[in-house]
Amino acid sequence: MRPNKLRTLLAQDTPIVNAWLSIPSGYVAEGAGHQGFDSVTVDLQHGLIGFETAVSMLQAISATEAVPLVRSPSKAPEVIMHLLDAGAYGVICPMISTPEEAAAFVAACRYPPQGSRSFGPARGKLYGGPDYFEAANAEILAIPMIETAEAVDRIEAILAVPGVDMIYVGPNDLALDLGEGPGAEWHPRATTDAIAHVLDRARAAGVATGIFCGDGALSRQRLAEGFDLVTPGNDFNLLMGAMSAAIAETRRP
Amino acid sequence: MRPNKLRTLLAQDTPIVNAWLSIPSGYVAEGAGHQGFDSVTVDLQHGLIGFETAVSMLQAISATEAVPLVRSPSKAPEVIMHLLDAGAYGVICPMISTPEEAAAFVAACRYPPQGSRSFGPARGKLYGGPDYFEAANAEILAIPMIETAEAVDRIEAILAVPGVDMIYVGPNDLALDLGEGPGAEWHPRATTDAIAHVLDRARAAGVATGIFCGDGALSRQRLAEGFDLVTPGNDFNLLMGAMSAAIAETRRP
Amino acid sequence: MRPNKLRTLLAQDTPIVNAWLSIPSGYVAEGAGHQGFDSVTVDLQHGLIGFETAVSMLQAISATEAVPLVRSPSKAPEVIMHLLDAGAYGVICPMISTPEEAAAFVAACRYPPQGSRSFGPARGKLYGGPDYFEAANAEILAIPMIETAEAVDRIEAILAVPGVDMIYVGPNDLALDLGEGPGAEWHPRATTDAIAHVLDRARAAGVATGIFCGDGALSRQRLAEGFDLVTPGNDFNLLMGAMSAAIAETRRP
Amino acid sequence: MRPNKLRTLLAQDTPIVNAWLSIPSGYVAEGAGHQGFDSVTVDLQHGLIGFETAVSMLQAISATEAVPLVRSPSKAPEVIMHLLDAGAYGVICPMISTPEEAAAFVAACRYPPQGSRSFGPARGKLYGGPDYFEAANAEILAIPMIETAEAVDRIEAILAVPGVDMIYVGPNDLALDLGEGPGAEWHPRATTDAIAHVLDRARAAGVATGIFCGDGALSRQRLAEGFDLVTPGNDFNLLMGAMSAAIAETRRP
Amino acid sequence: MRPNKLRTLLAQDTPIVNAWLSIPSGYVAEGAGHQGFDSVTVDLQHGLIGFETAVSMLQAISATEAVPLVRSPSKAPEVIMHLLDAGAYGVICPMISTPEEAAAFVAACRYPPQGSRSFGPARGKLYGGPDYFEAANAEILAIPMIETAEAVDRIEAILAVPGVDMIYVGPNDLALDLGEGPGAEWHPRATTDAIAHVLDRARAAGVATGIFCGDGALSRQRLAEGFDLVTPGNDFNLLMGAMSAAIAETRRP
Amino acid sequence: MRPNKLRTLLAQDTPIVNAWLSIPSGYVAEGAGHQGFDSVTVDLQHGLIGFETAVSMLQAISATEAVPLVRSPSKAPEVIMHLLDAGAYGVICPMISTPEEAAAFVAACRYPPQGSRSFGPARGKLYGGPDYFEAANAEILAIPMIETAEAVDRIEAILAVPGVDMIYVGPNDLALDLGEGPGAEWHPRATTDAIAHVLDRARAAGVATGIFCGDGALSRQRLAEGFDLVTPGNDFNLLMGAMSAAIAETRRP
Repeated sequence: MRPNKLRTLLAQDTPIVNAWLSIPSGYVAEGAGHQGFDSVTVDLQHGLIGFETAVSMLQAISATEAVPLVRSPSKAPEVIMHLLDAGAYGVICPMISTPEEAAAFVAACRYPPQGSRSFGPARGKLYGGPDYFEAANAEILAIPMIETAEAVDRIEAILAVPGVDMIYVGPNDLALDLGEGPGAEWHPRATTDAIAHVLDRARAAGVATGIFCGDGALSRQRLAEGFDLVTPGNDFNLLMGAMSAAIAETRRP
Repeated sequence: MRPNKLRTLLAQDTPIVNAWLSIPSGYVAEGAGHQGFDSVTVDLQHGLIGFETAVSMLQAISATEAVPLVRSPSKAPEVIMHLLDAGAYGVICPMISTPEEAAAFVAACRYPPQGSRSFGPARGKLYGGPDYFEAANAEILAIPMIETAEAVDRIEAILAVPGVDMIYVGPNDLALDLGEGPGAEWHPRATTDAIAHVLDRARAAGVATGIFCGDGALSRQRLAEGFDLVTPGNDFNLLMGAMSAAIAETRRP
Repeated sequence: MRPNKLRTLLAQDTPIVNAWLSIPSGYVAEGAGHQGFDSVTVDLQHGLIGFETAVSMLQAISATEAVPLVRSPSKAPEVIMHLLDAGAYGVICPMISTPEEAAAFVAACRYPPQGSRSFGPARGKLYGGPDYFEAANAEILAIPMIETAEAVDRIEAILAVPGVDMIYVGPNDLALDLGEGPGAEWHPRATTDAIAHVLDRARAAGVATGIFCGDGALSRQRLAEGFDLVTPGNDFNLLMGAMSAAIAETRRP
Repeated sequence: MRPNKLRTLLAQDTPIVNAWLSIPSGYVAEGAGHQGFDSVTVDLQHGLIGFETAVSMLQAISATEAVPLVRSPSKAPEVIMHLLDAGAYGVICPMISTPEEAAAFVAACRYPPQGSRSFGPARGKLYGGPDYFEAANAEILAIPMIETAEAVDRIEAILAVPGVDMIYVGPNDLALDLGEGPGAEWHPRATTDAIAHVLDRARAAGVATGIFCGDGALSRQRLAEGFDLVTPGNDFNLLMGAMSAAIAETRRP
Repeated sequence: MRPNKLRTLLAQDTPIVNAWLSIPSGYVAEGAGHQGFDSVTVDLQHGLIGFETAVSMLQAISATEAVPLVRSPSKAPEVIMHLLDAGAYGVICPMISTPEEAAAFVAACRYPPQGSRSFGPARGKLYGGPDYFEAANAEILAIPMIETAEAVDRIEAILAVPGVDMIYVGPNDLALDLGEGPGAEWHPRATTDAIAHVLDRARAAGVATGIFCGDGALSRQRLAEGFDLVTPGNDFNLLMGAMSAAIAETRRP
Repeated sequence: MRPNKLRTLLAQDTPIVNAWLSIPSGYVAEGAGHQGFDSVTVDLQHGLIGFETAVSMLQAISATEAVPLVRSPSKAPEVIMHLLDAGAYGVICPMISTPEEAAAFVAACRYPPQGSRSFGPARGKLYGGPDYFEAANAEILAIPMIETAEAVDRIEAILAVPGVDMIYVGPNDLALDLGEGPGAEWHPRATTDAIAHVLDRARAAGVATGIFCGDGALSRQRLAEGFDLVTPGNDFNLLMGAMSAAIAETRRP
C-alpha cells in the first residue's frame, strides 16, 4: 500500500502544512496539491461540497504529492466509511467530545478486528494499491476534532483511546462553546488556555496535534507552540482576500 | 429592463474593475460579485467551465451588484446567443481580427433588425426583466478581443463597426502573435507599442477599452494609461498566489 | 445582516405565499423567485434534490426578492447546519413530534449560547452580510413540521419551546398517521379537526403557522382560516397539471 | 430496431402533440413523457441544457412511451451526430435556409451511403436495439426548421431535398426576420402569410409539418390548419404560468 | 401500479440474476438493464454514487426491462424513504443485525398503517403509476442484509419480522465479523457454515434469499445451493477484469 | 515539463496499448489508468462525455502512470485548444482528410510560432509543470484520424505535414466511406487494403501509427502488422461483454 506520507512526516517531527478546501472544485484541489501543501483536506462539513464532488477532488489531489484528507460532515459511521472508500487517507471528524465518541469514530476507520469498517474499498484500493485491505488500518489516520468544553475536560481519556492518531483543534467552535467569540483575533483567555492544555496533554500522551489557523502568521506561531499540523486558512477566504487586495491595489489613489 | 451598470460607469468615465473566473464554481462567482468588482466575467474559453456551470455562475453573480459577463469559447453565433439567453449582460469574444468578424460577432449579440440573434431569451428575461426583448440590443455589450497582429493593423476598421461597445485587449495572445512571449513582465517593445496604438485609436473613435492584466499593480497602471476596464488577474492564479504566500509565511524560518 | 423579509411580513400580518421546489434546477428556482412568491422552499426531503444542487438553487433564489428556505431531508443537526451554511434563511424540519425534538431542532439552527450550531457560515455570510454571525440567531427561522398524531397531542409543549418561530403543518403525513388518506380532497374529520386544533393553539401561543396546500384555492381557504403562510402546490405537480391542460386543449374535439 | 412511433402516427395522419423542454432536468423529462405527449423535445439551442444533461433527459424520456427528440444547438454535423449517438430519434435543426443546408443537415443524420454520419452508436443502440446501424437511416427523423425569409422563399427546393422527413416552423424567429415581432399574438400579416405558404407547399410536396405554438389553443388551431405536429408551449413558460395562477388564486380578494 | 417483476419471478421459483453498480453513470445503468439482468442494484453504500446520480441511474434502468433496486448507504429511515421516492422498487439495507433493526427498516419502506414512510412519492409514482400510494406497500421489496455474526445468531427472529421480503447475504462483511478474510476464495469454514445456516433458516421460513458473489461461477453455485437471487460481481470489477484481459491478450507473446 | 511517455515508448519502438473511454466517469478513468494501459483516451466524439466531465477524467488519469489523451468532438480549433488547456497530452482528431485539415489541426495544437494555439494553459500547466508554455509544442501529440477514402488517397501529403506525430486509423468510418460495413469481422478487401496502404506509407514516412481494434486479439494482430499503438475495444463494450459473460455463466445449465 502507498505509505501515508503524513505518518512519515510525523515520525520525523517535520511540520505539516495542510490545505483546507470549501470550494467544490477538482481544479482548485489539484492546484492546492501542487502548491506545496503536505496534505489537502476536503471539508464536507462547512464547505459547499457533496459526496461525488468530494470523490473527484480526492482524485485530483491524488494527481499530486499531497496526502488526501477529508473532514467528514458527520459522525455517522456509514458516512466516514464511504469517504474512506472514496480514497481519503485520513478523516478529520467534527465534534468528538468523549472517549466513547472517539472510540466509535476510530472503529469506523478500521476494518475488523480493530474496528467495524464495512468492506468495499472501491477507490481506496486504486489509490492505495492492491494490498489496501491488509494495510489500511495501519496507514489511514483517524483524527477527532477537539472543539467543545467537554472534549477539553476529557482530553486525557480521549487521547488514551487506541487508534487516535492525531487530534485536531477547532478554535472557533471551541471558543463559542466556552462563551467566547469566533475568529482568531478575538480569542480571550479561556480559549487560549484550553488550546494550551489540549496541546500539553497530547504531547504528554505522544499523540500528534493539528489546528485550524486563520492565516500563515498564526500557523507559524502554532508550529512554534508545538503543533504538528497547521491549516493556514481555507481556500475561499484566501481567494476573497486576494481579490480584495487586487481591487484595492487597482483603485489605490 | 435592468440597466447595464457598465454603460452607466462608462458614461461617467468611472474606472471599471472586472473579475475573471476560470474555476467552475457558483460559490466563487458569488463571492467575487460581493467582493467589490464592478463586473464578473465567466471565462469559457480557457477557464475549465462548461455551459451549464456557466449558467449557475451567472445566476450566482446575479445575486450580487456586479454585472455578469462571459468570455465566449467560440466565435460561433449559436454559442454566443446561448450565453446571452443564459443571462450574460456582455460578451467578450476572442480572436476578432477583421471588421467582418467584428460585424458578425455584433450581429450575434443583437436581435433583428440590428442583428440576427435568435429569439428565446430564457434566463436573460429573468435577469433583465419582461421588456428584455425590446431593450436587450441597447443594454448588452458586445466586446471583441484584440489579440492578433492583424487586428492591430485593422483596428480602425474594427472600431468603426456599428455596435462594437468596447474592445478588450488580450496581451498574451497578442504578444505571441507578434513573436514575443506571454506574461506581463516579458512584453518587449512590439506588444507595448501595439497596445498603445490600439488604446489611442479606440479613444479617438470614442470606443471604450478593456484589458487583461496580471495583477492589481498593472491594472492600476493601465487605468492611468486610459483604459476604461481592467482585469487584475484571474481567480485561479490569485488563489494559487495566496496559497503559496500562506505556506511561505507558515514555513518562514 | 440582510433582514429576513418573512419576519417583517409576519409582524405586519401580511399573508405569505410560499413556493415549493422538488425539481433539481436553479432555473426553476430563479423563475419561481421572480414569479411573486414571498419565499421559495427547496425541498430536500421528497424533492429529487441533493446538497450541491440545493446550494445552486439557493443562489438562484438569492438573485430574486424571495426569501430562500429549505425543507431539510433529516433531523440530524449536521444536515440542518450545512443547509444554513449554504444560505437558507429558514429551515422547515419534518417529523417533529415532541418538545425535545423541537428543542434539538432549534438548537441546530442557533449559534451558542442559544444553540449549538457549528461555526462556518460560508455562503450564509455572502447572502446575509458580514455581521451574519452576530445576527443570524435573530433572523433565521426555525420551523418544525407538525405531521404526526403525537405532535398534535403535544402541540402546546412544542409551541412553548423557545425559538420555534413558526410551525408548518404537513397534512398528508398527518392524515396517514391519523389513519386517513393523503390528498387534500380526502381529508375526513380527524385530520381536519387536528389541523384546526393546531392552528388554534398556535394562535393562542402567538406562534406563526404555515401549511402545505394542494393548490391556490385551498391556499386561499387556509389563509382565511388564519394561517400565516401557505404553499399552493409544488413545482412538479403544477407543471404536470399545466402540461396536461395544454395537451387536453390541443386535442379538444 | 424499435420503430419510430412518430412515423406510424404520420402514416396514420394522427395529430402529434410534442413537449418542449428547456429546464435541464431528467425528472421533468420523464414527467413530460408520462403526461401524454407523443414526443418530447430536449431543446439545446435556447433551453439551458448541455450535452450530458441532455443524455440523461433522453434516458428519462426512454422510460416512457414518448419519442425522444432534440433540437440541436448548432448545424455543425459533429453536434448533430453526437445527439443521435445519445439516442435521439429525431433532430430539429435551427436556421436551415437553403437546400444546401438542408442536404448537409440530412447527411449528418444518415450513415453512408445516404449520408456521412460517423459510426459510434453508443446509447442509440441501447434504445434502438442491436440492428440500430442497419435501420437507423430509415427510422430517425431529420427535421429542418423554417424560420427565415430566405427559407420561405426557397421552401420548395428545401422540401425537395431527399431525406427531409418533416419541416418545423419557428414562428418567432421567422417573424423577426420578416420585420415583425415575436409572440404568437403579435404576428401580423407577413408572418401569417409565410406560415400558410410553407404549410401549403409542404402538403403539396408530401412532407410532414410541425410548428411551435404558444399554448394549447393555438396548437389546436394549427392542427386544424393542417399541421401534423404541434408544440403547445415550453416547460418553463407552462410552469411559470401555473405558478402565477396559483399565486393569483391564493391572493384573490 | 406496475407489478414488481421480482415478486413474479420469486413466485415462479425462477432464479434471479442481479447487477450491482458502483460506477456513477446512467449510461452503465441503462446498459446493464439491457444486458439481461432481472434486476439492477444501484449501490450507494460502497459505490461512488450520490443521491442525484442515483436518481438518474434509476431513470435509466426504468428504460429497460430490469427492476430498479438500491442498496441504501444508511439505515436512517429518511434516506431509505428518499430512495423509494426516487423510484426504487426494492431496498437492500446494510448491517441489519437484530429483529428490531429489521422492523425499523421495514417500517421505513411502508406507508401507514403498515409502516411509517412519509408521503411524497415523486418519481415513484411516475415509474409505478397513479395508484402508487395504494399499491406500493405490496410491491416494493424490503431486503435486509445479513452480514454480522449477530444477525446469523438472530436469523430466525429477523426472518419472522413481518414484511421482510428477502434477506441478502453480504459474505465479505460477514467473514470479517467472523474473524475471517474478505474475498470469495478465502472463506474458510465459519463463513461457509454461517451462510449455509442462514440459507437453511430462510428456506424453512419461506423467506427469499439473495447473495453477493464474486463472479458467474460462484453465482451458479449459489443458485444450485438454493439461493433465489445472485449478484455475479460488480460493474467496476467486471470492467477492470475485462480491461486486464484485453491488455494481456494484446501483449501475449 | 513532465515528459510525454508515449514519445519515449515510440522512440524505443515499444508497443503502446491505449484505453478508450466513452463512460463519463472519473472512477472508470482512474481504474483504467491503473490497469496497465500506456495511455487512456477520453472520447468526446462518440462517448457520452461533455467538457467538464472530461476535465475530471483527465485529472483522474493524471493520478496514474498512464498518459492522458482525448479524442476531440470536433475539428474546431477552439475545442481542441480547450482540451489541451484541460491537460490532454495528445489529441486524436476525427475526420482529417486533407493536408490542409491536418495542418490546421496541428496549428491548433501548437503555440506560435509553430501554430496558433491561444495562451491560457490552465490545468495543462498543473499537470505538465511550470515550463509548460516553453515545452508543450515538443511534448504534446497531434494525431489526425485517417478514416475516409479521401484521406487514404492523400495519405502521403497528410503524412508530410510538419507536426503530425502519429496517424490513427478509424476502421469503422473508413469501411463505411469505402462502401463496406462497420465491425472488425465484416471488413472485406477494400478496407483491409486501405489500412495496409496507410500503414505502409506511414512507416515509410517515419510517422507513428495507431488504430482502433475491437478486442485484444485484433490488437495483437495489428501490433504484429506494425502498428505502434492499439486500442483493444472501448470501456462500455468491454463492460457489456463482461456482464453478458457473467450472466451466461450464472445461467449455464
